[in-house]
Amino acid sequence: MLEQLKLEVLKANLELPRRGLVTYTWGNVSGIDRESGLVAIKPSGVEYEAMTAEDIVLINLDGKVVEGNLKPSSDAPTHVALYKAFPHIGGVCHTHSRWATAFAQAGRGIPAYGTTHADYFYGEIPCTREMTKAEIESAYEENTGAVIIEAFKDLKPDYVPAVLVKSHAPFTWGKDAADSVHNSVVLEEVAMMAIQSRALNPAIEAMPQVLLDKHFLRKHGANAYYGQK
Amino acid sequence: MLEQLKLEVLKANLELPRRGLVTYTWGNVSGIDRESGLVAIKPSGVEYEAMTAEDIVLINLDGKVVEGNLKPSSDAPTHVALYKAFPHIGGVCHTHSRWATAFAQAGRGIPAYGTTHADYFYGEIPCTREMTKAEIESAYEENTGAVIIEAFKDLKPDYVPAVLVKSHAPFTWGKDAADSVHNSVVLEEVAMMAIQSRALNPAIEAMPQVLLDKHFLRKHGANAYYGQK
Amino acid sequence: MLEQLKLEVLKANLELPRRGLVTYTWGNVSGIDRESGLVAIKPSGVEYEAMTAEDIVLINLDGKVVEGNLKPSSDAPTHVALYKAFPHIGGVCHTHSRWATAFAQAGRGIPAYGTTHADYFYGEIPCTREMTKAEIESAYEENTGAVIIEAFKDLKPDYVPAVLVKSHAPFTWGKDAADSVHNSVVLEEVAMMAIQSRALNPAIEAMPQVLLDKHFLRKHGANAYYGQK
Amino acid sequence: MLEQLKLEVLKANLELPRRGLVTYTWGNVSGIDRESGLVAIKPSGVEYEAMTAEDIVLINLDGKVVEGNLKPSSDAPTHVALYKAFPHIGGVCHTHSRWATAFAQAGRGIPAYGTTHADYFYGEIPCTREMTKAEIESAYEENTGAVIIEAFKDLKPDYVPAVLVKSHAPFTWGKDAADSVHNSVVLEEVAMMAIQSRALNPAIEAMPQVLLDKHFLRKHGANAYYGQK
Repeated sequence: MLEQLKLEVLKANLELPRRGLVTYTWGNVSGIDRESGLVAIKPSGVEYEAMTAEDIVLINLDGKVVEGNLKPSSDAPTHVALYKAFPHIGGVCHTHSRWATAFAQAGRGIPAYGTTHADYFYGEIPCTREMTKAEIESAYEENTGAVIIEAFKDLKPDYVPAVLVKSHAPFTWGKDAADSVHNSVVLEEVAMMAIQSRALNPAIEAMPQVLLDKHFLRKHGANAYYGQK
Repeated sequence: MLEQLKLEVLKANLELPRRGLVTYTWGNVSGIDRESGLVAIKPSGVEYEAMTAEDIVLINLDGKVVEGNLKPSSDAPTHVALYKAFPHIGGVCHTHSRWATAFAQAGRGIPAYGTTHADYFYGEIPCTREMTKAEIESAYEENTGAVIIEAFKDLKPDYVPAVLVKSHAPFTWGKDAADSVHNSVVLEEVAMMAIQSRALNPAIEAMPQVLLDKHFLRKHGANAYYGQK
Repeated sequence: MLEQLKLEVLKANLELPRRGLVTYTWGNVSGIDRESGLVAIKPSGVEYEAMTAEDIVLINLDGKVVEGNLKPSSDAPTHVALYKAFPHIGGVCHTHSRWATAFAQAGRGIPAYGTTHADYFYGEIPCTREMTKAEIESAYEENTGAVIIEAFKDLKPDYVPAVLVKSHAPFTWGKDAADSVHNSVVLEEVAMMAIQSRALNPAIEAMPQVLLDKHFLRKHGANAYYGQK
Repeated sequence: MLEQLKLEVLKANLELPRRGLVTYTWGNVSGIDRESGLVAIKPSGVEYEAMTAEDIVLINLDGKVVEGNLKPSSDAPTHVALYKAFPHIGGVCHTHSRWATAFAQAGRGIPAYGTTHADYFYGEIPCTREMTKAEIESAYEENTGAVIIEAFKDLKPDYVPAVLVKSHAPFTWGKDAADSVHNSVVLEEVAMMAIQSRALNPAIEAMPQVLLDKHFLRKHGANAYYGQK
């Protein structure tokens, strides 16, 4: 069932070690088939080298396994929560990539300091609030989704397809699994450069809004003129 | 037309991922044939792995496509502006390389801290001023060229073949496309070392002028004695 | 004798250069056979490329060579001390990996700043006290073991399988040789991110205890639910 | 003439790009045959990929070319000065490696912060004084050698086989060409970790003398017990 989706999700997961975003099994990517409401996701704790499309687990939006012999990623409830809250997204990616995780651990969002950021993220990439004891002790992974969604209550998830979970690591999303990984790669570049820019200029401020508009809208929306066609 | 130039420009573009200067399609190199006034440039948003010499677009100094089926890089008007203002250059390279972009985002030029810098850049690599709302909203890429040229009104572009565009990223140039990429590689090294030197010694000053003269002129100009012949 | 153990120890040692944790011969891994009380360990100063299972040296818990033509690693007495003091461990790894060694040189432990840390280390990774002149001048390597053990007098070595030896470098351990290397890889990631998080937020504090509990116990102990089965 | 030495010098030069210590042609290694007083050195500005043993230039201790069709490295007079002043050394290596060059640009020596340093360098790696206008304008490369030698007037070059030339980059040396490169590799590791340790602990001090003694003398001198034999 959904063999094409499973293949896409497999390939997106394999892109993580290829891009240097994960160590061991620390990352997981999923993709959703909106028609059936089924999510294809990496199995928990399985090594990338040995993974096949058959290992990809299908779950429904209640988090129940529908197909597959392995347990889904322990972060599956976070993925599901994002799919339910953000209706336009088709893929979710979670890593502990070094530079982005440094921001998450520091409890800091990443302000838009330059056009690399602006080409993909329309403003600051937020960091979630600290989770409560109750949120952590019960339904932790689902509540991780909830604090992400809370951080986006005044933001458009399609315009800022990334978040930093405080004391944890980033999640990104996109139109499909591959696109969510693409955004994780960009996030890592943006995070690395943001740390260095702050070291160079402790009084640094976010880029001018007009430049942010220009770059984001040059690539996104009705009047985009970047790329072919 | 200009098949040799297109091949050189292709090779120069492919050098960018090989040298670790670009992620995805974030970079573009061009070369000019001064006789015909035609510029060969990377197409917009095309992946490096799949690019062939046929994909390289020929444009004239009005920015109009003269040959090629693809749209030129969206940064083409910046390249054209530089070719028009800097008559000795034969190639232009634009990347978002990590360490150099950190300086651009911080709004800081890179002072000459050592001989690595002095071997290629005769003094501080400048950072452009912030662009105005009007400059950003209309003819943005052409105006990016204009603020670069403004930053060089008291500088020789042949002596400092690099610039940092504020809140954006670097541009470099050279005698041809390959040379412009070479200067981007050097810029990235110089930027990385400059950030670390500043961290080690916050009171760091630019190197003595006499040492800057010695190193730059050892490799450039009439009395150069570095390399063969 | 213990050919399987020697092979495991060889493979664990070869993992060090593959993971970028060592330069030249700066690292050594051992594994113990608890039944016989014999330790298989890397020979001293031998290059990884040329090493074979035959080169792995067998020593007893008095540090005497039982089998092998080469001298054991000069750090062997430290390994032996750890095996004697920490009865549950089956492997020990020592490297001078860059980021972790930076903490050791700075004389700083690594607080738990995020879930990457919490997934493997149940609290701060301690840094040993400075060794005395007497401890350094006589039985130095054995005394290195002693100050590590002292740092764990109120800690469970199975819960925090890593230490930073002041002015020196890290040691890690695990259920076998491969696991001790795994923990060295994780330690290096954790150390890198910790340095960057501190730079971003000088007032950073350790993560909440409840989140540390959640992540460590999600992977370890009776109620673990990470991974398959 | 001296074919074996030329081959060793070629191999030592090729080790530089393999170890990530040089960009383009920014580095040069030489080796000396003490009996004949001839130095084999990299030609100036030649790319590593294309270099053969025939390209290696033989010069005498007056800096005159004795054999070879190419010009020697422009840094040859510095190499020669070191061979004349430091009678026990057999090889010299010069790079612009990133982390070590950051110290040179900052005008800072590298204190011994840990045992990685102590295993190779018996105390602080010094940074030379600023060169005078006269020293730079005439016989610059020879005078670079002179300020290095001046920095070692109270140091043993065999005990601290590395130096940072202010506003420039490192030179290292060793018992032969390969050993001088080995020391450049170690220097780069030591420099990287020193920068990070200083960031973690701005009040950091050099390691205790007794620990420095222990580690250096464990590997060097009459009572060494590291490695085989």
